[in-house]
Amino acid sequence: MIIGVKYMNGDLLKNEALKKHYQWRGKIEMISRVTVDTRESLAMAYTPGVAEPCLAIAEDISKSYELTRRHNTIAVVTDGTAVLGLGDIGPEAAMPVMEGKAVLFKELAGIDAIPLCIRSKDVDEIVNTIHLLSGSFGGVNLEDISAPRCFEIERKLKEICDIPIFHDDQHGTAIVVLAAMINALKVVGKNMVDVAVVINGAGAAGTATAQLLTNYGIRNITLCNRRGALETGACLADVMKGADVFVGLSAANCVTAEMVAGMNKDAIVLAMANPIPEIMPDAAKAGGAAIVGTGRSDFLNQINNVLAFPGVFRGVLDARARNITEKMKIAAAQAIAAYVQPTADCILPNPLDRNVAAAVAEAVIKAYKN
Amino acid sequence: MIIGVKYMNGDLLKNEALKKHYQWRGKIEMISRVTVDTRESLAMAYTPGVAEPCLAIAEDISKSYELTRRHNTIAVVTDGTAVLGLGDIGPEAAMPVMEGKAVLFKELAGIDAIPLCIRSKDVDEIVNTIHLLSGSFGGVNLEDISAPRCFEIERKLKEICDIPIFHDDQHGTAIVVLAAMINALKVVGKNMVDVAVVINGAGAAGTATAQLLTNYGIRNITLCNRRGALETGACLADVMKGADVFVGLSAANCVTAEMVAGMNKDAIVLAMANPIPEIMPDAAKAGGAAIVGTGRSDFLNQINNVLAFPGVFRGVLDARARNITEKMKIAAAQAIAAYVQPTADCILPNPLDRNVAAAVAEAVIKAYKN
Repeated sequence: MIIGVKYMNGDLLKNEALKKHYQWRGKIEMISRVTVDTRESLAMAYTPGVAEPCLAIAEDISKSYELTRRHNTIAVVTDGTAVLGLGDIGPEAAMPVMEGKAVLFKELAGIDAIPLCIRSKDVDEIVNTIHLLSGSFGGVNLEDISAPRCFEIERKLKEICDIPIFHDDQHGTAIVVLAAMINALKVVGKNMVDVAVVINGAGAAGTATAQLLTNYGIRNITLCNRRGALETGACLADVMKGADVFVGLSAANCVTAEMVAGMNKDAIVLAMANPIPEIMPDAAKAGGAAIVGTGRSDFLNQINNVLAFPGVFRGVLDARARNITEKMKIAAAQAIAAYVQPTADCILPNPLDRNVAAAVAEAVIKAYKN
Repeated sequence: MIIGVKYMNGDLLKNEALKKHYQWRGKIEMISRVTVDTRESLAMAYTPGVAEPCLAIAEDISKSYELTRRHNTIAVVTDGTAVLGLGDIGPEAAMPVMEGKAVLFKELAGIDAIPLCIRSKDVDEIVNTIHLLSGSFGGVNLEDISAPRCFEIERKLKEICDIPIFHDDQHGTAIVVLAAMINALKVVGKNMVDVAVVINGAGAAGTATAQLLTNYGIRNITLCNRRGALETGACLADVMKGADVFVGLSAANCVTAEMVAGMNKDAIVLAMANPIPEIMPDAAKAGGAAIVGTGRSDFLNQINNVLAFPGVFRGVLDARARNITEKMKIAAAQAIAAYVQPTADCILPNPLDRNVAAAVAEAVIKAYKN
């Protein structure tokens, strides 16, 4: 069982994190895999020997996956418009997050991730920039791009690129939410397709989660934004009445214990607004929730994308898949869920478990091949 | 003194180089500089702690040089249109060269170089792509882009970017040629400003070399292309008559021993066409040349850009210079020349000497500051 660890208090954490970043001066680094210390080794790795792999790729572009680092390299790309909960802070300011992502790609899945920030908010300019660079990478992880632009950017890139494109804020979140739901419903003994799900937050994460849950077979999903249910306009408190699962991808403190009390017996509350959830775990429990998850590591049941994206990309790179299909995402969610024997206090694996990504990758490759 | 090392024969080298590239599967790799093995370390490097450096950069973009890897990171960018002597082989096929360059940047100057290939030959599209990404890097090394497009691409990028832009095929070559000339003329006891120089090849390298030599103070320079001298139309054999220095940045075997014999006493022949020089060293010597240099490591006096680009970028990154001026390039050439006590058989340092880049960087920083 995973026990939530109490952080140092908020201000101390902030100070420490800033201090560490000044010390690190960058969290990633490009290194050489070859030694160049003799004229002969220089002749192999550089001119004139390097002409041979160049010619081999010119003849067959797919050889770039064998003769360069492309097979293990992805770009982590942002325009800085929706960074963490901070909003549009600009491309350069988003880079500490992109570097952090690159650290996790490497540490958890051995992937070489190159952080790139784009100085544009124009959909077509962003799409064109990424497309023109796509011969340099084996995949692209889009990150922290605001909705609804992120949908169009991803759709257009998928149409024109021959490498997998994955907007983590959408699909990474959808995958871990599905994994959490699979296990939480298993613990309370409810059938996945019969439950009533309320998703609060119709941005990138909420929209993609609704899509993936639908494709998984869940029929009763109500998607809400700040004004209430998108279809009926009913307020959040009303649509939560009789619901089995609440998925919060919205804002701090928008759910009360009373609203949870109106849900079905054995309610599941996944309140993932960061850093302050839609409802704090103790309040949700007071309202009668059987299982509570949040995005935070200082509470039980942390629901974190890091369980998904390293393994998903490890899988698509190893399979050299051109797309990441709904089937592959569902397989990833199932693999994350299957990794633990779930209990009410432990519905997901530890985000830092080094073996989760391998299990996810295996499932993704299998789903791609079948 | 540096002794040229005989390579294994051509075909064997080719086979070996290709085999090595299949074994390496990429010559570079992105690694993490931080350990993420506890929830607390994850909270520092990623969310929620990472919000602090993000906010600090949002407030002051220049902090990106302190809080991310930007201070040590450059992009090595190509469109694949003029790769080695192979010509327009396409962006993906150029990547083994870009990776080789990244290896040398790291090994010789500790720089993190990110290879990027662009799937476009359109000047404005290339300029726009690089410009939009320029917040991700501390500098851009352009590579293997065909003339005359390379001139316009570099000029436009210098106008709009706030980081240094350096087309190595132009300026790296110009710097090492100037360094070689400084030392060769010192050996034969001629005065730099009085000599007559013939440059054969009016592409990227030849044009930039003519420019840098002019800015250094050399007044008598004749630039030739395949049809002869650009200004007078005289043929190469005619313009070489009475010249002191021949600089070949052109094609194999276009100079004969007779043409060298027509040059002034103590002629200097720098025949840098690759892999086959304008004239082989023994033929140039037979024609009476006092000093001969080529681009090859299996002859004495190898003239190789690798003496210049690592140190130039180390210097501009450390100085956080926005431009690489002619003064800085001349300082780089002088530092390379000053690194050795020249003789006829040793006009330049060993390209793999780990300390050359530091000496070049120091000179570049000094020139930038004065």
